[in-house]
Amino acid sequence: MRSSQFFMPTMKETPAEAQIVSHRLMLRAGMIKQASAGIYSWLPLGFKVLKKIEQIVREEQDAIGCQEVLMPTIQPADLWRESGRYEDYGKEMLRITDRHEREMLYGPTNEEMITDIFRTHVKSYRELPKLLYHIQWKFRDEVRPRFGVMRGREFLMKDAYSFDLDFAGAKRAYNKMFVSYLRTYARMGLKAIPMAADSGPIGGDLSHEFIILAKTGESAVYCHRDLVEFDMLKTEIDHEGDLQPIVDRWTSLYAATDEKHDAATFEKIPADKRVNERGIEVGHIFYFGTKYSAPMKAQVGGQTGDPVTLHMGSYGIGVSRLVGAVIEASHDEAGIIWPESVAPFRIGLVNLKVGDAACDAVASDLYARCLAAKVEVLYDDRDDRPGPKLADMDLIGLPWQIVVGPRGVKSGVVEIKNRKTGEKVELAPEQAFNKLTARA
Amino acid sequence: MRSSQFFMPTMKETPAEAQIVSHRLMLRAGMIKQASAGIYSWLPLGFKVLKKIEQIVREEQDAIGCQEVLMPTIQPADLWRESGRYEDYGKEMLRITDRHEREMLYGPTNEEMITDIFRTHVKSYRELPKLLYHIQWKFRDEVRPRFGVMRGREFLMKDAYSFDLDFAGAKRAYNKMFVSYLRTYARMGLKAIPMAADSGPIGGDLSHEFIILAKTGESAVYCHRDLVEFDMLKTEIDHEGDLQPIVDRWTSLYAATDEKHDAATFEKIPADKRVNERGIEVGHIFYFGTKYSAPMKAQVGGQTGDPVTLHMGSYGIGVSRLVGAVIEASHDEAGIIWPESVAPFRIGLVNLKVGDAACDAVASDLYARCLAAKVEVLYDDRDDRPGPKLADMDLIGLPWQIVVGPRGVKSGVVEIKNRKTGEKVELAPEQAFNKLTARA
Repeated sequence: MRSSQFFMPTMKETPAEAQIVSHRLMLRAGMIKQASAGIYSWLPLGFKVLKKIEQIVREEQDAIGCQEVLMPTIQPADLWRESGRYEDYGKEMLRITDRHEREMLYGPTNEEMITDIFRTHVKSYRELPKLLYHIQWKFRDEVRPRFGVMRGREFLMKDAYSFDLDFAGAKRAYNKMFVSYLRTYARMGLKAIPMAADSGPIGGDLSHEFIILAKTGESAVYCHRDLVEFDMLKTEIDHEGDLQPIVDRWTSLYAATDEKHDAATFEKIPADKRVNERGIEVGHIFYFGTKYSAPMKAQVGGQTGDPVTLHMGSYGIGVSRLVGAVIEASHDEAGIIWPESVAPFRIGLVNLKVGDAACDAVASDLYARCLAAKVEVLYDDRDDRPGPKLADMDLIGLPWQIVVGPRGVKSGVVEIKNRKTGEKVELAPEQAFNKLTARA
Repeated sequence: MRSSQFFMPTMKETPAEAQIVSHRLMLRAGMIKQASAGIYSWLPLGFKVLKKIEQIVREEQDAIGCQEVLMPTIQPADLWRESGRYEDYGKEMLRITDRHEREMLYGPTNEEMITDIFRTHVKSYRELPKLLYHIQWKFRDEVRPRFGVMRGREFLMKDAYSFDLDFAGAKRAYNKMFVSYLRTYARMGLKAIPMAADSGPIGGDLSHEFIILAKTGESAVYCHRDLVEFDMLKTEIDHEGDLQPIVDRWTSLYAATDEKHDAATFEKIPADKRVNERGIEVGHIFYFGTKYSAPMKAQVGGQTGDPVTLHMGSYGIGVSRLVGAVIEASHDEAGIIWPESVAPFRIGLVNLKVGDAACDAVASDLYARCLAAKVEVLYDDRDDRPGPKLADMDLIGLPWQIVVGPRGVKSGVVEIKNRKTGEKVELAPEQAFNKLTARA
């Protein structure tokens, strides 16, 4: 993509309304535009990141045999009356009346609707277990939306639901999701730590929030340092095997949010292993038994022929929130630092002197090579001063920069910069291309 | 995917509420489930087709340099007051009041919002032309929703918008979309014919509906037979070149919907070249000049420094509607017949005698080969009678079937069936696999 054509309205000024760094940087990088309070349009740069994050989430759900569906945004109120949540849910639920005066709502979540699908179509224990998910826009009418996409009103969420015959089955589903979530965040370059969460009136210990550590996080979190050092991508996983040892490894060490923090237990950890930082919630998995299946009569015929009420769980990841969360976890003074897996482009190619025949030739050739090799590249071919162009490139945080300038070109080199480390090397254009496009 | 695990609730009975064939077949094939009037959940089989269609639409938009964004579903009413459409739009607009008593709406289309984005961020003629699109759920509160996803209330639409300095630029954008649309439908196996449409108060001839021919279509259409025979995928296209000759080729021959039909002109076509069939609208492209940019003051600084009011067009494709439209155009008594490009799986592998060691071995081996070759395959490994399994496979309409039965296996063969032609051949399993997975 050429910058001269790309719709990426960057800003030099820091927008006054943005209180946190991810919101500021997303506005400055031209990733989003506010449509109204807590509601955003995703401009091309932001959209690319959103899609990459969505795709990683999707792949890791598919990997555990979770099947993708898509439920609508607008739901009938009657469904929520069956579970009793229509009245319970406060003003956060966006209630709508259609032209025929039917009560509808914009779904803040989908337990009722997926339970309705299931009870309609699944009749026998032979069809279990099942895991279903969808990635759909939700709406929660927050009283004071803020922090950009981190706490918006309209937000993209992956929510999955498990259906099992008994607790043991539900626990297997829970473990699959637990492990899948760890892989999902690790693939995005995030260190997410599962922390015991409130499981509400159901009780039990099957409720975990996944928290990433970030200095700018919304709440204090406490954990054992070993958890920060586990590398999930190096763990061999057989999703169909027994995942309990992996889950135990993560849950046997101390990790708690502020709400669940127990100072006495935390103090027992050796001082150099105690981590006390800020955290951002990026997911929540939850076993809730028959909370919806019982009132909604979601039953199947069991092996003995008697009806069995389904055991269910739900598993959420805030997809649009993650775009902000990645930035909170990975930025510097100059701007965003994208992990490679979610970067909108892999390479930013900057022609410092557009109109200079030698620079144009080298830059155009590198651009053409990247396109031919299907390497995602943003080519800044705008006729502008070098300073703002380099500042824009740092701001939008692509993992690698190739800078083509008149001095270097004369000596046959271009500069490669690693956005994260700041490391720069000069190489011949051909070498530069090879270095950045060689696959490991 | 194994049928024993796949969530695909097929039905033998024809649902009483479905009036048209695509609605009936989508319900029977377990592709969708109604959530409330005109609002559907997409189950895994339907979701796969929806995504394939969406992806073709996306690729052909990207190919003409149209950049993808994503605008929210919920819009502020004030934006629509600026264009004057808030009051004009009748009860089809789903109006919403949020917790702070602000008037909002569920977007039925996005002209106002994209114009707002543009006027905020684009200031100079140097940034033009621009083409932007998004693929997002829309809501139109139809008084009587029907025909399944063909006329739903919540529906997925690709809407693109063009921004140019003058009519000549807008015409170039229009031509790009015109050609892109023809390619889009052709890739889905559809024969879509552009027909002059009402351009409303703006006037001019820059408004075309794209209509596919289907016996079950919603309205009568009339055209010259040569249009039906043009093959867009064989036409070499330089999207940056002059597209007018291609547009002229398609618009110089007679083609009209019922509303615009002129019997006298039609009669002048030689009788054997007259086509009078039913049609389904699957897209609409429209130049509307400064209809939104003037009241909303979307201007850029022109070359002389004076402000220029933008010339705009909008370009819609009904993505969810197309799932139904493809079925209307391609089915038989037994069920759906998917064109390869949008089929949820390429191959349906049927094991007629699950539990028979020889059948299981041959079928499992073919399944493993397909997975290894990344060929999309649905393996019916359910322990059920052959009749219903073969009927299900015909119903869901995968392009190819491989049937593994005890008699064939004894003589070392399996049966391949082409769903469209019904042609069957017996081949050794290895040959069958090679035949269906060889790339042209």
